Amino acid sequence: MPLLAEVNEAELGPFVLASVLLSLIVIYLAAKLGGELCARVNLPSVLGELVGGVIVGVSALNLVVFPEGAEPVHSALMDFLQLTAHLEPDALLAIFKSQSEVISVLAEIGVVILLFEIGLESDLKELIRVGPQAAVVAIVGVVVPFVAGTVGLIAFFNVATIPAIFAGAALTATSIGITAKVLAELQTLSSREGQIIIGAAVLDDVLGIIVLAVVASLAKTGEIEITNVIFLIIGAAVFLVGSILIGRLLSPFFVMVVDQMQTRGQVLISSLIFAFVLSYIAAAIQLEAILGAFAAGLILAETTKRKELEEQISPIADMLVPVFFVTVGAHTDISVLNPLNPDNREGLIIASFLVIVAIIGKVITGFTVFGQEDINRLAIGVGMIPRGEVGLVFAGVGAASGVLSESLDAAIIVMVIFTTFVAPPLLRVVFNQDDDSDSGANAEPSQAMAQASTD
Amino acid sequence: MPLLAEVNEAELGPFVLASVLLSLIVIYLAAKLGGELCARVNLPSVLGELVGGVIVGVSALNLVVFPEGAEPVHSALMDFLQLTAHLEPDALLAIFKSQSEVISVLAEIGVVILLFEIGLESDLKELIRVGPQAAVVAIVGVVVPFVAGTVGLIAFFNVATIPAIFAGAALTATSIGITAKVLAELQTLSSREGQIIIGAAVLDDVLGIIVLAVVASLAKTGEIEITNVIFLIIGAAVFLVGSILIGRLLSPFFVMVVDQMQTRGQVLISSLIFAFVLSYIAAAIQLEAILGAFAAGLILAETTKRKELEEQISPIADMLVPVFFVTVGAHTDISVLNPLNPDNREGLIIASFLVIVAIIGKVITGFTVFGQEDINRLAIGVGMIPRGEVGLVFAGVGAASGVLSESLDAAIIVMVIFTTFVAPPLLRVVFNQDDDSDSGANAEPSQAMAQASTD
Repeated sequence: MPLLAEVNEAELGPFVLASVLLSLIVIYLAAKLGGELCARVNLPSVLGELVGGVIVGVSALNLVVFPEGAEPVHSALMDFLQLTAHLEPDALLAIFKSQSEVISVLAEIGVVILLFEIGLESDLKELIRVGPQAAVVAIVGVVVPFVAGTVGLIAFFNVATIPAIFAGAALTATSIGITAKVLAELQTLSSREGQIIIGAAVLDDVLGIIVLAVVASLAKTGEIEITNVIFLIIGAAVFLVGSILIGRLLSPFFVMVVDQMQTRGQVLISSLIFAFVLSYIAAAIQLEAILGAFAAGLILAETTKRKELEEQISPIADMLVPVFFVTVGAHTDISVLNPLNPDNREGLIIASFLVIVAIIGKVITGFTVFGQEDINRLAIGVGMIPRGEVGLVFAGVGAASGVLSESLDAAIIVMVIFTTFVAPPLLRVVFNQDDDSDSGANAEPSQAMAQASTD
Repeated sequence: MPLLAEVNEAELGPFVLASVLLSLIVIYLAAKLGGELCARVNLPSVLGELVGGVIVGVSALNLVVFPEGAEPVHSALMDFLQLTAHLEPDALLAIFKSQSEVISVLAEIGVVILLFEIGLESDLKELIRVGPQAAVVAIVGVVVPFVAGTVGLIAFFNVATIPAIFAGAALTATSIGITAKVLAELQTLSSREGQIIIGAAVLDDVLGIIVLAVVASLAKTGEIEITNVIFLIIGAAVFLVGSILIGRLLSPFFVMVVDQMQTRGQVLISSLIFAFVLSYIAAAIQLEAILGAFAAGLILAETTKRKELEEQISPIADMLVPVFFVTVGAHTDISVLNPLNPDNREGLIIASFLVIVAIIGKVITGFTVFGQEDINRLAIGVGMIPRGEVGLVFAGVGAASGVLSESLDAAIIVMVIFTTFVAPPLLRVVFNQDDDSDSGANAEPSQAMAQASTD
């Protein structure tokens, strides 16, 4: 019955749009309520967006949920759609899947836009200048938590080698999105500390991709696919260096073309084409799209179009970035935190060990920064703490591969939750302490992203 | 194997994002190349976006295509993804479906944002003042093409009654999106003619939904579901009047809440929540989401936030609206226009009749405007000509219901193509003629949308 199928699909179309609009309404309400509450008690608003996401997500209201696991997921949003639009269960499931797919991609485009904006507000010369320090921070921040976590789990908790390596790997991640957003809110993105954190977080993202590839192949086949790892490392190096070199060569040509254009949105659309091309290349060579977007932002920041572009990208970021943070919160199942559930206790004990390693392992990285006097070393270490969505990816791959026990999987999730939610307020504290010292003098106000800062 | 399925889905995620980014790159290139070429030969840039869409769509390059029909669709974009990312055929098909779903929803959100922006730039008081004239234009523009088309097809072409009624119904549509975009580009949106066209196009959209519901039930069951039609009519009336009355009552409260907010994007996100709520309600009562967005724009245009909101919505429209116009073009299969193919000839003969009825049936509506001296009646009639995406919906429902012969279906598509592509240049001609007359004096420059106008 191909004709019938066609009618059905055409008939479902408006409902997919309706359910996406409904999801966006819920996401925006959660983001704004959470963000405003946090702003009022002097916390970064991104924390509010994460907490708002937890409340509307799988942990509480079940409004923003994703049918990706094996078990059927209950969506209160779909109940509401059913109530208002009267649909058959089959149609409802198809709509639910399409809606989740669209919201997931919108969230991913959101973080692509966020990294593009962060790149635009960063200073390539400063990043290159602090490059060696950022590299040391990134490498120490990967090696120390990985070794301490893996060895500790084997020694103190009798965990087998492969799951211990997996958990150790999850400890290496840094969520560049969360850190960058908090730095922007605190107007410290362009400070020396801010640029070291951003540089280290970008390198950490690359290292994280390599670590994940290694442990995933280890979990699947018990062996490490050396060629794949070498390919990833070379790809990442060539991409980061190559895109910036070629991009800088081509950017005068870009400005010339844009100046010739007469139709509406010429700067914005040309820049998005550029950013999406680099994002696509990064994704195609198995890096992450956000790395391409960041590189594109860095390159365009050096052109005469920077200011105009910052103004135009700002409302787009306002529209799409909250989708990312709220869905990160919505994906997080905080029921593993409940100590009253006896099943959780073993996980919580392991988790407290992982949390300590996760925090200490990153905080010490700040003290490895060399050749910089009067720098806020604590702020750099704290900036590397949040695991965020990167940690959730590790937990998800680990759960799916079957190598992690339930309690170890829960412990990783608790570690991710804790580091993600504790980092934004901590960052505000450690940067505020720094207000008198002279390193704050480097910080030029990051005008486009500064509204949230209330102090 | 639920675990394996989970891994697969998680592994496909990055490729869905990559393919969406690739689609957006193609869409933006098509929109900008087409738009810039049209701007250079003094044609509205939206025509260039439609033509760009045809070139990248199913008619030529097969880059932006949608797997919605019964037959397998070949996507050159997926070939490229396959080439760069090495995926299995099954995975590729899943990615193709998700990518198409996301692009379709982005296009729909694009037209929602467009209508919100059009509402923001419209003047509710002026719309109410020209309401009676707009209503006459809308009703005449539905009745005349419908009757002339249906009777003509039966009398001259021996078409059976039900398919003739279907084709007649397809003649009633007006694409509010295309007309509004051209008016904005010509800076005539806020002229008296512009507001009559917008008012009539909105009413025509409502009438079109009712007509489509009637003919679809006629095609399916041979009978008209009277209760459903009455429900639609009452729903539309209550929604349009109610949303504007209640919205105006609530808008001071809205401004007060927004003024209390401290986080970034407060005006934009609050307005989007408002617009999406009205869009959802409109979609849920089987009207169209765009009607809700238009009403929201009209209401917010009367608040003190109008200017700030116009500035912020503009880059979002620049980003999403081209997705809509390019996909409208991409959906259009212009192979039915080829007279060298003997299969097309019968359709082309019927099509030439439909095109004549389609144009005359709308152009005369301008001459029914009463009580307005010195008004550009030709411009009003021409503004109602483009059938655009609304006409394609009729053709799609007709093809799926099986009541249309192949030649009649092709004839409707030709009529839609012709009216859609001829209206933008015609509108420019008839409004330019009017430059000396005093009715142009009402037109205040529509600052945010005016860049494309080169004269």
